[in-house]
Amino acid sequence: MRIAVDAMGGDYAPDVVMQAVTDALVEIPEVDILLVGHLEKLSYYIEKYNLKPSSRLEFVHAETVVEMADPSTAAIRAKKNSSITVCAGLVAEQRADGMVSAGHTGAAVASSTVKMRMSKGVDRPCLATVMPRINGKWVMADIGANTDCNPMNLAQFAVMAELYSKKLFGLSNPSIGLLSVGGEDIKGNELTKETFKILSRMPINFIGNVEGHDTFTGDCDVVICDGFVGNALLKTSESLAQATFSWLRDAFTKNAVRKAGAILAKDAFSELKKHGDFEEYGGAPLVGLNGVCIIGHGVSSPKAIKNAIRVANQFAQQNLPEQVSSRIYECGVEKSAFAARFHSM
Amino acid sequence: MRIAVDAMGGDYAPDVVMQAVTDALVEIPEVDILLVGHLEKLSYYIEKYNLKPSSRLEFVHAETVVEMADPSTAAIRAKKNSSITVCAGLVAEQRADGMVSAGHTGAAVASSTVKMRMSKGVDRPCLATVMPRINGKWVMADIGANTDCNPMNLAQFAVMAELYSKKLFGLSNPSIGLLSVGGEDIKGNELTKETFKILSRMPINFIGNVEGHDTFTGDCDVVICDGFVGNALLKTSESLAQATFSWLRDAFTKNAVRKAGAILAKDAFSELKKHGDFEEYGGAPLVGLNGVCIIGHGVSSPKAIKNAIRVANQFAQQNLPEQVSSRIYECGVEKSAFAARFHSM
Repeated sequence: MRIAVDAMGGDYAPDVVMQAVTDALVEIPEVDILLVGHLEKLSYYIEKYNLKPSSRLEFVHAETVVEMADPSTAAIRAKKNSSITVCAGLVAEQRADGMVSAGHTGAAVASSTVKMRMSKGVDRPCLATVMPRINGKWVMADIGANTDCNPMNLAQFAVMAELYSKKLFGLSNPSIGLLSVGGEDIKGNELTKETFKILSRMPINFIGNVEGHDTFTGDCDVVICDGFVGNALLKTSESLAQATFSWLRDAFTKNAVRKAGAILAKDAFSELKKHGDFEEYGGAPLVGLNGVCIIGHGVSSPKAIKNAIRVANQFAQQNLPEQVSSRIYECGVEKSAFAARFHSM
Repeated sequence: MRIAVDAMGGDYAPDVVMQAVTDALVEIPEVDILLVGHLEKLSYYIEKYNLKPSSRLEFVHAETVVEMADPSTAAIRAKKNSSITVCAGLVAEQRADGMVSAGHTGAAVASSTVKMRMSKGVDRPCLATVMPRINGKWVMADIGANTDCNPMNLAQFAVMAELYSKKLFGLSNPSIGLLSVGGEDIKGNELTKETFKILSRMPINFIGNVEGHDTFTGDCDVVICDGFVGNALLKTSESLAQATFSWLRDAFTKNAVRKAGAILAKDAFSELKKHGDFEEYGGAPLVGLNGVCIIGHGVSSPKAIKNAIRVANQFAQQNLPEQVSSRIYECGVEKSAFAARFHSM
């Protein structure tokens, strides 16, 4: 399998990406890499990591980069030759079997949607991510690929996130909840009330509405929401976790006795931090595309990007796009089934 | 000032409410109380707390209670004689100057909206709440009064939450952010993009879009969102805080050394907990009504409900509804200014 890697994407790119690629070439022998970026700007790092073109490593030039301040559409308009768009193009042309980028999420969504198109029957792709809970993990989707959704989109996200959680956790029948403002089916906004009806009719393990209270402390395997809500929830949770560590530090350094306590229990803090560490999954897959695309967190470490390459390889091997499509039809939520009611955004 | 208190509302009602009223009569001498509930069912507690009708305490019978599983509309349809609706009616009839309930939020919104109506120029009320951040506090609105909003609603919430933060924190010009999925004004969903334009034209300290990352770790005084998003964010944050304490407990009890550390630093944990403790504010005010209504958390303690009575008294004395109305017109976002573009939900 060949994976296209966006060398320019991420807060610490290209350095961390080059490190990740160097490691991946050693640790994941079954993967070949197409390293995409501005070759002149990369030359320092190519030398630093002693990377040489080979049967397993090819350099592909991309003239521009989509910057964080650019609109998502830059990837398909003003910056068609950006590293992220070139990656998506390589997958579309089947020169690569998947792509990995820790760059501009919106640009990755836009370019891969335009270049790769959707799996058959899918209207919009969704970004799925792994979250922690008291005992275990859960999947949330969408976390930001779609800021405005219709009920068909959410129903399709349920199918795609279900498949992702099966792959990830090996669950045979993951429980799926619809994020809402109350457990009862009458609670919610117009979008969730309509979506509730569709999910209820699907051959999935739909457990009904779940609330914010049911996320980190609940036992639902998959939580579905629109990308605006999911993005706000994910980032707010990251913010609260960060604030909590700051409060913990303050509380544990207030006096000598507490400091002594903190020293005795110092392993406890690193253990706590691990609950929020999902480097092993590498990033969030953009599911529903006719191709494999893993989007890394902006602050991705080399380890996270390396594991994103590993996950992209696995999904490409298992032909995830085809599996998504067949499950979408199995559940009766293919795009054409809704054509009269919801049109694509 | 006379405050109507819903004796039946809350997970631990009526006991905690009766305790709160008993304390309030002693500690807040300027407040008289109308205690509303099923008098027969309350008789045990009336005796327990030795409550007697007086010039400062009146008992008002309410035949039913809106249960958590009831739809919000029960308060204004099937259960018009519920304790929550009777409270709202007492304010509407000016027999009370404000109300406090820790019961069904949706029912409180429905009954007070129907009974009290809006302040002049206001389309929908919003629920505002205080949240912690690394250094200080911020206000989030709406946290659940409105699951579907239009841009006019969000613009009005900004005015109402601004006023609440001024009262609460004594700020002269609180910074106001619009919750979105990115900092740039082009980021967001249809609702926030349209709202952004309106907020930009208002004479408020609008700092633009804020992300989830800017909440607990940021420095924005007021964050505006629709009630679906706000409710999800609030409850998810509560869930994450609860999970974090569970992980902390596990990590600190794993071995004898860590346990010793935890004992030395035990005050640090209670200090950490305090960041999430907002009992002093008593609850979330439903701002925008032509009357005062404070909604307590379902798990409210007697102290929280007592403080909600105190806050209701303050808001009634300051004539908050009139202040909301005049600021709404000052900002040019009165309902009639939008009549052609957005109709009430």
